[in-house]
Amino acid sequence: MDIDAALFDVFGTMTDWRSGVSGELASVGERAGLHADWPSVTDDWRRKYVPTLGAVVSGEAPWRSLDELHRVMLDEVLDERGLDAIGDADRERLVSVWHRLRPWPDAPSGLEALHRSPVITAALSNGGVGLLARLTKQAGLRFDCILSAELARTYKPDRRVYLRAAELLGIEPERLVMVACHPDDLEGAAGAGFRTAYIPRPLEWGPEAAPVPAPPGADLVADDVVQLARALAG
Amino acid sequence: MDIDAALFDVFGTMTDWRSGVSGELASVGERAGLHADWPSVTDDWRRKYVPTLGAVVSGEAPWRSLDELHRVMLDEVLDERGLDAIGDADRERLVSVWHRLRPWPDAPSGLEALHRSPVITAALSNGGVGLLARLTKQAGLRFDCILSAELARTYKPDRRVYLRAAELLGIEPERLVMVACHPDDLEGAAGAGFRTAYIPRPLEWGPEAAPVPAPPGADLVADDVVQLARALAG
Repeated sequence: MDIDAALFDVFGTMTDWRSGVSGELASVGERAGLHADWPSVTDDWRRKYVPTLGAVVSGEAPWRSLDELHRVMLDEVLDERGLDAIGDADRERLVSVWHRLRPWPDAPSGLEALHRSPVITAALSNGGVGLLARLTKQAGLRFDCILSAELARTYKPDRRVYLRAAELLGIEPERLVMVACHPDDLEGAAGAGFRTAYIPRPLEWGPEAAPVPAPPGADLVADDVVQLARALAG
Repeated sequence: MDIDAALFDVFGTMTDWRSGVSGELASVGERAGLHADWPSVTDDWRRKYVPTLGAVVSGEAPWRSLDELHRVMLDEVLDERGLDAIGDADRERLVSVWHRLRPWPDAPSGLEALHRSPVITAALSNGGVGLLARLTKQAGLRFDCILSAELARTYKPDRRVYLRAAELLGIEPERLVMVACHPDDLEGAAGAGFRTAYIPRPLEWGPEAAPVPAPPGADLVADDVVQLARALAG
């Protein structure tokens, strides 16, 4: 695949949000004397993501930062689960967990290999620029550039996010590849003229989750970021 | 200085634009059979920078990317110097030299030291996002985040550039330090509420240039990026 830059999804593709968030939920909840199936509370929180961001994409809701939307979704989940005893400061702390996730084991070394190649690497996430700067620094994820849906004031998979990234990099969409474990992200990128690379993350929703089939339209499928780097950097 | 992130000027502060640009001008010009004092042509090109970008800041000229403005300024200089024999492809090549400058020797290791500290590092340059991604990757300048005046559609020292950077990082201006060898950049940042750090670059305009006195208002003065990293990261 002859490309100039590879753009990466971050939540799920490069980082393990589920274990990081459910660990913090458990710690905060138990300090408040609450008991719950914390991984399942985490999954409920994350399931609100697609419809909540979708309302911004459709124009039904105004643009707000992912931190603000995370807080709205968290308040809904804690209410639905009867976990109202978790206070305001702890809720803010939970929102900021998304700034401190751990990477999948292959992600740092795969990115380092790409950094040493001519291929430019960039994050292209629904997380904001500040969130991504903090997250990638502490997780040891070396990107050459941080890009965010925030710079288009909408969210993936809105094609305007990918077109804005191409415009900022000064690279034609067909010379860019979007890398993600989410078929809808790759479809949005393909709709903007990008090439696409799929990486399965079977543990994204925990060990019992049903496997996601590779999207049939992906230009490339790689087991992980290290294998992707070999395919892209030669 | 108790700060969360350090933002760096790039042309002059982190990279040696003069030797990179004049080397390419000499190579292009001599291939076209021309003779000139190439460092002095380079200086003429760079001297157009402040008034040309200033016209965008004042609203007198529309926003255009730095690549576009570099091309306009180059055409003017080549015309003034009687170097019209340099053709279009070579002019584009000269504009792209600004994407491939060499770093000052202390800059890569100073940035690596800051990367290992809790301080977030970001480029904050008048170069565009794509230019900066290419430049920092090939120069070995490891920033945690690439920010650009392009994201505010104006140019430094317009305070809107610094305020936009603070907004994107999600950090209050007083927790940010602007690092530059140009007093006007530090004044602009101070006007937006940033702390300021001055690094002298006595060779920026070549070995015969008059020294620039350190601006009296700077919060910190460091000899180079390594010393700055020691001061900021402790």
